[in-house]
Amino acid sequence: MLDKQLLMIPGPTPVPARVLHAMAKHPIGHRSKAYGKIQEEITANLNWLHQTQHNVQALTVSGTGAMEAGIINFLSAGDRVLVGCNGKFGDRWGDIAEKYGLQVERINAEWGKPLDVAEFQSKLEADKEKEIKAVIVTHSETSTGVLNDLEGINKAVKAHGEALIIVDAVTSLGAMSVPVDEWGLDVVASGAQKGYMIPPGLGFVAVGEKAWKAYETATLPKYYLDLGLHRKATAKNSTAFTPPINLVFGLQEALRMMKEEGLENIFTRHNRLKKASRAGVKALGLSLFGADEVASPAVTAVMPTDVEAEKIRSTMQQKFDISLAGGQNHLKGKIFRIGHLGFVCERDTLTVMAALEATLQELGQNNFTPGAGVAAANQVFAG
Amino acid sequence: MLDKQLLMIPGPTPVPARVLHAMAKHPIGHRSKAYGKIQEEITANLNWLHQTQHNVQALTVSGTGAMEAGIINFLSAGDRVLVGCNGKFGDRWGDIAEKYGLQVERINAEWGKPLDVAEFQSKLEADKEKEIKAVIVTHSETSTGVLNDLEGINKAVKAHGEALIIVDAVTSLGAMSVPVDEWGLDVVASGAQKGYMIPPGLGFVAVGEKAWKAYETATLPKYYLDLGLHRKATAKNSTAFTPPINLVFGLQEALRMMKEEGLENIFTRHNRLKKASRAGVKALGLSLFGADEVASPAVTAVMPTDVEAEKIRSTMQQKFDISLAGGQNHLKGKIFRIGHLGFVCERDTLTVMAALEATLQELGQNNFTPGAGVAAANQVFAG
Repeated sequence: MLDKQLLMIPGPTPVPARVLHAMAKHPIGHRSKAYGKIQEEITANLNWLHQTQHNVQALTVSGTGAMEAGIINFLSAGDRVLVGCNGKFGDRWGDIAEKYGLQVERINAEWGKPLDVAEFQSKLEADKEKEIKAVIVTHSETSTGVLNDLEGINKAVKAHGEALIIVDAVTSLGAMSVPVDEWGLDVVASGAQKGYMIPPGLGFVAVGEKAWKAYETATLPKYYLDLGLHRKATAKNSTAFTPPINLVFGLQEALRMMKEEGLENIFTRHNRLKKASRAGVKALGLSLFGADEVASPAVTAVMPTDVEAEKIRSTMQQKFDISLAGGQNHLKGKIFRIGHLGFVCERDTLTVMAALEATLQELGQNNFTPGAGVAAANQVFAG
Repeated sequence: MLDKQLLMIPGPTPVPARVLHAMAKHPIGHRSKAYGKIQEEITANLNWLHQTQHNVQALTVSGTGAMEAGIINFLSAGDRVLVGCNGKFGDRWGDIAEKYGLQVERINAEWGKPLDVAEFQSKLEADKEKEIKAVIVTHSETSTGVLNDLEGINKAVKAHGEALIIVDAVTSLGAMSVPVDEWGLDVVASGAQKGYMIPPGLGFVAVGEKAWKAYETATLPKYYLDLGLHRKATAKNSTAFTPPINLVFGLQEALRMMKEEGLENIFTRHNRLKKASRAGVKALGLSLFGADEVASPAVTAVMPTDVEAEKIRSTMQQKFDISLAGGQNHLKGKIFRIGHLGFVCERDTLTVMAALEATLQELGQNNFTPGAGVAAANQVFAG
């Protein structure tokens, strides 16, 4: 059957009909009073979602653009920065920082393992001259399904006292608590097509007071991504440049839905989806990539040993119209990833487990009790 | 009556129902085969629209982001550039170039007047050392409704032989012929919410061979806006970063509609809308801002003398739900602007003239024959 896709990748994520309908409205002028009201509402709700008192800035970019803005607005060429690298996105932030002439020290961990908090601690403690200007970390590493210990790394940064913490929360924001003000996270970047439940095209950057102070002396060149221009406009319920109006209509609706559900409920839902996905996959005799203790609430990576990951993906797609993500870079063909982020409910996870079981059987895998995947997921949901 | 808006501003422009419906589809993964097919189609059609053999790059940005990409990918700090400034957008490109440490020489003209080709000629002819690396020009200056003589300036650039010509075609592309390859335009930037008939959120940059050569040695820092990354991806029918998928669905549909209408018909339509708008406004006793010979096909600026521009705007909005644009910067309150760009038909222009007449009468203006605005516009359309 055509066009009955179930999108289970870690972004873009499924979009509620309420949001799709909102996006299909006729655009309005972005310098109108009507638009100002929308901007006011979305800023308030973005602040709510980020648990911050400071206005979150919305930019017309994808997640990478938001992260680049999060880096270049607060640093100058030659600045020393630590970048946590244990996946595709950590590597990307290292690349961006190098492109802009920062002095980048990568703190590496194997893909599938979390970053080592102690390494950050010792680097930061050793920096008596306070030369380290920023620590750049991916919270939930989408490429591996590993959640880094942001709270732990942040404590080391706070003990240092000088460095900013710049966070890629692209697949954690809206899936788990990222208490920006409480933790004193200086810069937090995220993207629309993830926990926000809207299509791609908007990036978000939360900026704390300390980062705004750093902004004043940062000298890297920028204009379109200059967050100071955005801050000024946002404070007047306006935008520095033309916003993606129809996507903003969608964001307005999605944030209303998120408020209706409530932050705690959203986080609980994602946690349950994570646990059920992992339990189901294990019950089907497949190996998880990454340990339970460091599992992202957004995406579960699976490393099958007896059957090709890409065969599972293509069968799931062709037979059931379920889209799963593949591996990236050296993990291409070695893992597949189940997204359970944003507009995903328990029924979707049960569906994936049922289809995954049929797929494995079709591919000759029989090392599990029929029904085991669904049963294991059900057990988590019953708990 | 609520929600029966007629959007007559120079961007965002009205969006066809076919496009809105396309945008309301469920998103798909951007690394899927299905997305690759869409990318292939839109690249081919963007090339058709730009009259170029080189792949046009689509970026998740507003028009300013596209222009910034058009500047920073081909130049290095200290490079000497000429920037044409006769409106808000010319000024902006000057600002961007300065932010990036270019040596900017602004060639100014009064707002409402076109840039002087001879000034470019003499600067370029005097540059025997070939130090001028680029000439940056706004084709249709949206803030004033003035069309600059791109062909004339381009000839001076070609005579120079070294400098690139970098063009803001944001409100000319899709409204009039911008023959990128035939004229040898090196870099041409544009934005979605104009002639493309889709909502904002996508920027486009056409890049010629000479500019790609300059790209190889250009040293300004960039990553998200690095067109080399985009070129590589586009060549494989993919995207460097996550594209705004639902807006891309809309673009796919809009480009199909444009192909159905045909380039010549599109240009003729805009030319007729321009002429009819100007004839109608004049017949209603209002002064046009900018001469007929340099009038943009996208937007008509009006400078009323006996009645406040903002009163006309607010009455048109409140009484008829017709959105017109105001003046920008020092022209705020002094002019209003009628957009006739993108998904605008002759009926829309007649409607505006009819409503403008009623508005002027309501504001005590009676220095015209009743019906004169519509009659004058009709006469153009009958021609």
